[in-house]
Amino acid sequence: MFQRARDDDRVGLETINLHFQMDRYAELIVLVGLNLHPGQQLIITAPVEAAPFVRQVARHAYRAGASLVTPLFEDEKLSLLRLAAASDDSLDVSNAWLWDGVAKANASGAARLLIWGQDPGLLAEQDAAKVGRANQSRLQAYSAAQKIISTFAVNWCLAAYPTPAWASFVFPGEQVDRAVALLAEEIFTAARLDQPNPRAAWHAHNVALQEKTDWLNARNYDALHFVGDGTDLTIGLADQHVWQGGSMKCANGIACTPNIPTDEVYTAPDKVRVDGFFECSKPLAYQGSLIEGIKLRFEAGRVVDSAARVGSSALSAILGTDEGARRLGEVALVPEIAPVARSRRVFFNTLLDENAASHVALGRAYSNCVRPDSRQGQPDQRLNNSLIHLDLMIGSASIDVHGVHKDGTRQAIMRQGNWV
Amino acid sequence: MFQRARDDDRVGLETINLHFQMDRYAELIVLVGLNLHPGQQLIITAPVEAAPFVRQVARHAYRAGASLVTPLFEDEKLSLLRLAAASDDSLDVSNAWLWDGVAKANASGAARLLIWGQDPGLLAEQDAAKVGRANQSRLQAYSAAQKIISTFAVNWCLAAYPTPAWASFVFPGEQVDRAVALLAEEIFTAARLDQPNPRAAWHAHNVALQEKTDWLNARNYDALHFVGDGTDLTIGLADQHVWQGGSMKCANGIACTPNIPTDEVYTAPDKVRVDGFFECSKPLAYQGSLIEGIKLRFEAGRVVDSAARVGSSALSAILGTDEGARRLGEVALVPEIAPVARSRRVFFNTLLDENAASHVALGRAYSNCVRPDSRQGQPDQRLNNSLIHLDLMIGSASIDVHGVHKDGTRQAIMRQGNWV
Repeated sequence: MFQRARDDDRVGLETINLHFQMDRYAELIVLVGLNLHPGQQLIITAPVEAAPFVRQVARHAYRAGASLVTPLFEDEKLSLLRLAAASDDSLDVSNAWLWDGVAKANASGAARLLIWGQDPGLLAEQDAAKVGRANQSRLQAYSAAQKIISTFAVNWCLAAYPTPAWASFVFPGEQVDRAVALLAEEIFTAARLDQPNPRAAWHAHNVALQEKTDWLNARNYDALHFVGDGTDLTIGLADQHVWQGGSMKCANGIACTPNIPTDEVYTAPDKVRVDGFFECSKPLAYQGSLIEGIKLRFEAGRVVDSAARVGSSALSAILGTDEGARRLGEVALVPEIAPVARSRRVFFNTLLDENAASHVALGRAYSNCVRPDSRQGQPDQRLNNSLIHLDLMIGSASIDVHGVHKDGTRQAIMRQGNWV
Repeated sequence: MFQRARDDDRVGLETINLHFQMDRYAELIVLVGLNLHPGQQLIITAPVEAAPFVRQVARHAYRAGASLVTPLFEDEKLSLLRLAAASDDSLDVSNAWLWDGVAKANASGAARLLIWGQDPGLLAEQDAAKVGRANQSRLQAYSAAQKIISTFAVNWCLAAYPTPAWASFVFPGEQVDRAVALLAEEIFTAARLDQPNPRAAWHAHNVALQEKTDWLNARNYDALHFVGDGTDLTIGLADQHVWQGGSMKCANGIACTPNIPTDEVYTAPDKVRVDGFFECSKPLAYQGSLIEGIKLRFEAGRVVDSAARVGSSALSAILGTDEGARRLGEVALVPEIAPVARSRRVFFNTLLDENAASHVALGRAYSNCVRPDSRQGQPDQRLNNSLIHLDLMIGSASIDVHGVHKDGTRQAIMRQGNWV
């Protein structure tokens, strides 16, 4: 508001080009990510800094026949102000009234877009116990809205937006405008907007991911074995597990592509059959806290040892969220030749980083990762549940992955981080 | 985001000064407007352009002991995108899920801040029927949250923020930054921030308004008679009417100052005893539509003739909202020497303009304008109700106001727009 655009020509053209690319990105999110259907409401959660982009998304949503687009802008700086001033007790207060409303709208058919652009370093200086307490109440307040997502009740999409704070964190040496442009370019490439026909590229990509999941589903491995630098981990797979990847048919009958980008195929572990240890191959940014050098050791599915070089108290707070926070809810395979992986950059944002490396997730499993007929209306007792879902990158060029059958026979799936 | 601050010194200092004044304004809103109490949640609805100011408000709210501040940012440009693309039917779709949530939070004790900075010309080019249809569904969706406000169930405050679009509309010849600074200055003056001790000034002002309402309540007039250029209007007052003004004790026990600025004293008409005609003394900006030169004629409380020089179809749409939209729910007296009136400027924003002129409002009455013991738990049948509450400025330096007793005796209250 108290700012004006630079008026030298070079930046003017860059800005116009960025605006144009953003518009193509917005269109891709609406048509491929959400596959928004005429008459649907759309709820968009986004950083307030993304307001111009949300406007672009809304325009494409209305063109696609949206009945009403409601943005819910989030200002993460308010979290800082709260932590600085609020009493410990008051951190238990949450706005469930808002997220229950979102869940209610979803239950009536509204689609949901989540735009992520958090500052990875936001809460670095804050007291981990207070941050953990605020996160815990937020997760509880959010749980109904989260359940819509994790059960694929409606079409949804998670996408990234290069906010100034995030971009400056990823490109610390650059001026803000330049950092934003550089991060935007990485996001566009990851979203296949560098392809001549991005929608066709996504179609082909979704087919390729489907071939991969079909192959893995046909194998029906009993377990996966990850081995390499600092890692020797056996993950039992859920009895009736299903591999998923790319587009997903939701309970409302609409097939969306829930993550843009996505290069993973993923399934559900058996929550009591995880043994061994691993070292994370990338740092982790979680709710404004940065955690680096994570090492975990599992016995019978449960984390029994944990350490982190940076942010160990934040890691402890996360593991203490609930019982399910110490067990795995997802295992995902991503080749080292995926677009995000090729950039060799750490983005400090799970949406991008998880698509650059094979990973596991502590916490909640996705309900589409076991056969519906195996559930018989009951939650699978071996499928993990939690308020959290925290992806931890364990893949790298040093890691081999084997599929293990019930009879103990083994088959190489990935070697040095790529599909065999 | 793709902008940077100008770096010449003069503007630098102006910006710093504006930021500082905005912070004092934010503090005043929290302490005097809301009188926020420790432990309260605060819900802030605001234009997305006001995000930096919302941050300032949030800081003061947390200092005052707020447990959680939730901003709900509104991007009015999305309304334009919707009108351009959406089918007529889809305009009936609303996000009651959001406003019902807000009402639920209020019912649990959350305070509410409404920040207004709408672009008065936003929908000038749009089809009035479509705008009316969208407004109608929005009003219905908003009704539960609105009821919290109009019944003073919790402490709330309505305040203004100089968005670029609004400021440019009020100061069309100026550059945007300059227009914003000029409008900000008007808002600060209206909010008594030009006084050495604004909180003390508000205390004194609230006492003065109380003296005025005490005087009017003691008179217990049966009717008011407005007469002057183009106006000859008799407004019967509700049988058990109460004059209100300035700070207000809400049902949750907290006394707030619900409008900043406020220079009015107001009460409830008898909805079937309004006769005569008036011409509005100022243009009206309502939900992005501008209406000028409004003339209305009443018989037995109901609008029987209406005209407008500009925006007559928008006026018709408003009058057609429901039965109560054609009757009065408020009459308010404002002297010509009030701070906003002194500026002699039209702000195209009801919060400011209604505090520069005596006015009436079509639509919903405030429940605090009749004695509680007269209601006996029942809504007063002579108190108007509607989805709308639309203030129409009828006061000017040409208008005299008389109080009329049941026996027909008359007493001059205002002459040439000022208190006798």
